[in-house]
Amino acid sequence: MRGTIMNYPLTLPTILEHAGRLHGAQEIVSRMPDKSVHRYRFSEFYNRTKKLADGLIKAGLKSGDRVGTLCWNHYAHLEAYFGVPCSGGVLHTLNLRLHADELAYIAKHAGDRFLIVDDDLLPILEGFRDKVDFERIFVVRYNGDPVPADMEDYEDLLDGATSEFTYPEIDEFDACGMCYTSGTTGKPKGVAYSHRGVVLHTLAVSAPDAFGLSMRDCILPIVPMFHANAWGMPTTAVMAGAKTVFAGPHTDHESVLELLESEQVSMTSGVPTVWLPVVDAMKREADRWNLNPALKFVIGGSAAPEAMIRDFDTLGHQVIHAWGMTEMTPVGTTGIPKPSFDSMSRTEQFATLAKQGIPLPFVDIRVVGDDGPAPWDGETMGELQVKGPWIADSYYEPDDPIFSWTDDGWFRTGDVVTVDPEGYVKITDRTKDLIKSGGEWISSVDVENALMGHPDIKEAAVIAMPHERWVERPLACIVLKEGAVLSVESVREFLADKFAKWWLPDAVEFIEEIPRTSTGKFQKMALRERFKDYASE
Amino acid sequence: MRGTIMNYPLTLPTILEHAGRLHGAQEIVSRMPDKSVHRYRFSEFYNRTKKLADGLIKAGLKSGDRVGTLCWNHYAHLEAYFGVPCSGGVLHTLNLRLHADELAYIAKHAGDRFLIVDDDLLPILEGFRDKVDFERIFVVRYNGDPVPADMEDYEDLLDGATSEFTYPEIDEFDACGMCYTSGTTGKPKGVAYSHRGVVLHTLAVSAPDAFGLSMRDCILPIVPMFHANAWGMPTTAVMAGAKTVFAGPHTDHESVLELLESEQVSMTSGVPTVWLPVVDAMKREADRWNLNPALKFVIGGSAAPEAMIRDFDTLGHQVIHAWGMTEMTPVGTTGIPKPSFDSMSRTEQFATLAKQGIPLPFVDIRVVGDDGPAPWDGETMGELQVKGPWIADSYYEPDDPIFSWTDDGWFRTGDVVTVDPEGYVKITDRTKDLIKSGGEWISSVDVENALMGHPDIKEAAVIAMPHERWVERPLACIVLKEGAVLSVESVREFLADKFAKWWLPDAVEFIEEIPRTSTGKFQKMALRERFKDYASE
Repeated sequence: MRGTIMNYPLTLPTILEHAGRLHGAQEIVSRMPDKSVHRYRFSEFYNRTKKLADGLIKAGLKSGDRVGTLCWNHYAHLEAYFGVPCSGGVLHTLNLRLHADELAYIAKHAGDRFLIVDDDLLPILEGFRDKVDFERIFVVRYNGDPVPADMEDYEDLLDGATSEFTYPEIDEFDACGMCYTSGTTGKPKGVAYSHRGVVLHTLAVSAPDAFGLSMRDCILPIVPMFHANAWGMPTTAVMAGAKTVFAGPHTDHESVLELLESEQVSMTSGVPTVWLPVVDAMKREADRWNLNPALKFVIGGSAAPEAMIRDFDTLGHQVIHAWGMTEMTPVGTTGIPKPSFDSMSRTEQFATLAKQGIPLPFVDIRVVGDDGPAPWDGETMGELQVKGPWIADSYYEPDDPIFSWTDDGWFRTGDVVTVDPEGYVKITDRTKDLIKSGGEWISSVDVENALMGHPDIKEAAVIAMPHERWVERPLACIVLKEGAVLSVESVREFLADKFAKWWLPDAVEFIEEIPRTSTGKFQKMALRERFKDYASE
Repeated sequence: MRGTIMNYPLTLPTILEHAGRLHGAQEIVSRMPDKSVHRYRFSEFYNRTKKLADGLIKAGLKSGDRVGTLCWNHYAHLEAYFGVPCSGGVLHTLNLRLHADELAYIAKHAGDRFLIVDDDLLPILEGFRDKVDFERIFVVRYNGDPVPADMEDYEDLLDGATSEFTYPEIDEFDACGMCYTSGTTGKPKGVAYSHRGVVLHTLAVSAPDAFGLSMRDCILPIVPMFHANAWGMPTTAVMAGAKTVFAGPHTDHESVLELLESEQVSMTSGVPTVWLPVVDAMKREADRWNLNPALKFVIGGSAAPEAMIRDFDTLGHQVIHAWGMTEMTPVGTTGIPKPSFDSMSRTEQFATLAKQGIPLPFVDIRVVGDDGPAPWDGETMGELQVKGPWIADSYYEPDDPIFSWTDDGWFRTGDVVTVDPEGYVKITDRTKDLIKSGGEWISSVDVENALMGHPDIKEAAVIAMPHERWVERPLACIVLKEGAVLSVESVREFLADKFAKWWLPDAVEFIEEIPRTSTGKFQKMALRERFKDYASE
């Protein structure tokens, strides 16, 4: 028996219309490359976005065509977030931190027809433009330079279009966006987000026990919009009618804190490496910034060290630990304290907050270890596998063989986790970073996070080194704080009461810095390469 | 181009699994017919609900079969809310306040195969049982009486089943529930809710600017579970992991206040007629009940009088005015204050709170007047028409010709509204209750609400009486408070500064009581019948 309910598609035009009609007075604030601040209201965003959609169609865009963006976080990028999908096109956000060869591969593989690019990012475009076939390039102008001869002004595209635009028919399973994930092996792999997936993700992360955005909120997503839909926060803010602030290229701690203060932001989001200098500055100069007391920090991308969560707590701000993946639109879990949290000791509370949280509704999870499904006991490690209506079931025309889905259709996250009886997921490692010593698993992430709680240690990465007897043993690569001196023995002593003896690193290397990926995560592959011939004692 | 995202169906088993796995420790509290309190946890709810699904299938239920309920609000009814749909069946909630003939028609029309009935409601069942064909009847036992010979014990159904139950495959467009709406003309009409519609409705009303339920909340839906999914609140609470309290048959103000206090409820919901005696009691004995300071009152079903909203405000509690319909799963709008609210005068603020609110995301609205689409100016009246993924596109096999959908597929709500520039919908009347005087519309609801702000007036209903020159003129039917005396002239004077002169009732009748429908709304049809020959001066 069928329901007698409308088959109303879940597509982005509905969210844009909702925002334009109901939240026209709300503000969108963007920091420009020259540090000036651009402001307009949702009503103008709505009109310009419809013009963008109309302009793209007038420029020849056909349903399903990809439109690349090479942009910072700002209002024009938000216009593209909605304008491209609302034209029937597919928004492909290019990661400006990638190498030119990678960008060329990705843009070509996705088949990007058009490109929207910030003028101050034209030098990056020049690095790979001759290898790809953009038919038309629209330049978002900030710096006053004329538009290069073979490109067009983004504003001209809008000026030639109308906001009296009628949306094309869109099937909810159609793609609205693309994002590529750069693995450590093989070619970058593309995920094509569907309208349906993005809409459901937006509804799910809106709930109070996820981001909980209301029209009273003000968000500042530091996470780049070229990363996995900026964790869904811009789309969610538009649907909720929340004030939206963008930092442009300025994500140093001084600029971020200034913007958090001046706009009285209530929720911000970014990777731990963004927050390390922010929290340091807030500790050093406690009275300098007059932040919104309700300001919450959403931290994801990689695990937030417990010490950071404690620091934010001391400073009076809540951390929401979140976990997701490019393949998941991207949010999977959020670390909101459950009622049982209230009866925990402080130690248990911080240990809980340092976990990645509980799954969103409609994110189905299971943990698979060497011996099959792992119990939710907070101890047994296994690979986290997921299913749900905003999770990828394949990559877009992959060039390499793919082993990321199980035979019964679950996505293999590559994250090694434990799940406790309350359902809190704790990422203990990436499958590829896990250290297997004498048949037992050692979580490199756990040891790193403990090390980063040491007052003299700035950063730490723990990797496997080959060992004749135990197969692998941990090596700790440590960056000390300026002027600090530590012995190997004192490092091991510091860890001794936190872990079983066989978890303690056999060796410690003090290094200048830890190499990072384009997304700011530790690049352990580079460390493994550097220390591949390391001889353990 | 298709997205590379899983086609994961939006069905109720996913919500039940989420709640069972993540919120097992949360409580469900039910007041029983004998006023005792039954408590158990989500973990037990989860197990019993899966057993119910398994038991129904073992009892012969096939996919799409209807299972009727004739129950108060309590845990077993919540088990049916999930257990029936999770078995592949369709939950058909029977309104125990309807006449036996109506119940017989509805149960027969829906084709209910099985019935779950409270033992203290068996006398109601006896009134129509011989007219319908329930194959099996499961009795929820409270009062200790033995189960009648030809019926079965609900607990036996569960005892014979297993919670190791594997859900059948369910298409998201399949029906999960049914509810009949009793119009003033013609036969009752059935809406078949879809899994997809209920899931999306649940996600949408979870947002902070709707119900905003979190796992820290405690809900008490006074609205009966046999009314339009109890406004979606039980399903939303289960998904959020919110503590859930049911009042059973005891919805008198003393019982309700006692339960609000003892369970420290943070959100409750009901029609205005439920809250009138509650707010009166709270005013009379301000210190008697020690309620949760965060307690919010969701009021819908018919318009909350502004005086009631002011009273709750004075008592320190927020009112969330909501509007919906059985045909809408049911919520369409919620009256959360927008940021612009803060700069309004108190008068404007209460006028805004007395409106029905702004549409939920994915509820598309338009207002159609005599001259076509009406502007959102807060003045122009027209019929509210809606579209969206949880709104009915037809009735279930209707016996009468239906004119409730426009040719272009919008549902005609039958509500006459204005929408202000901020998007707040104000119900001014039902199309059939609107008074058309000299070609202009008079809102009976506006005049009624103003009258109910008079200190001597308990209730008021305004209806049209025929008029030779103006076609129709308003007649006010007023119930005075005990001992009060009012003249027709003083009534007109009280209204004089609130409305244009031609809106004032030509005539006033003081009556003993206003007849009500089974859902507690004013039954204006009965008044129109009573005063059909009323001669205006």
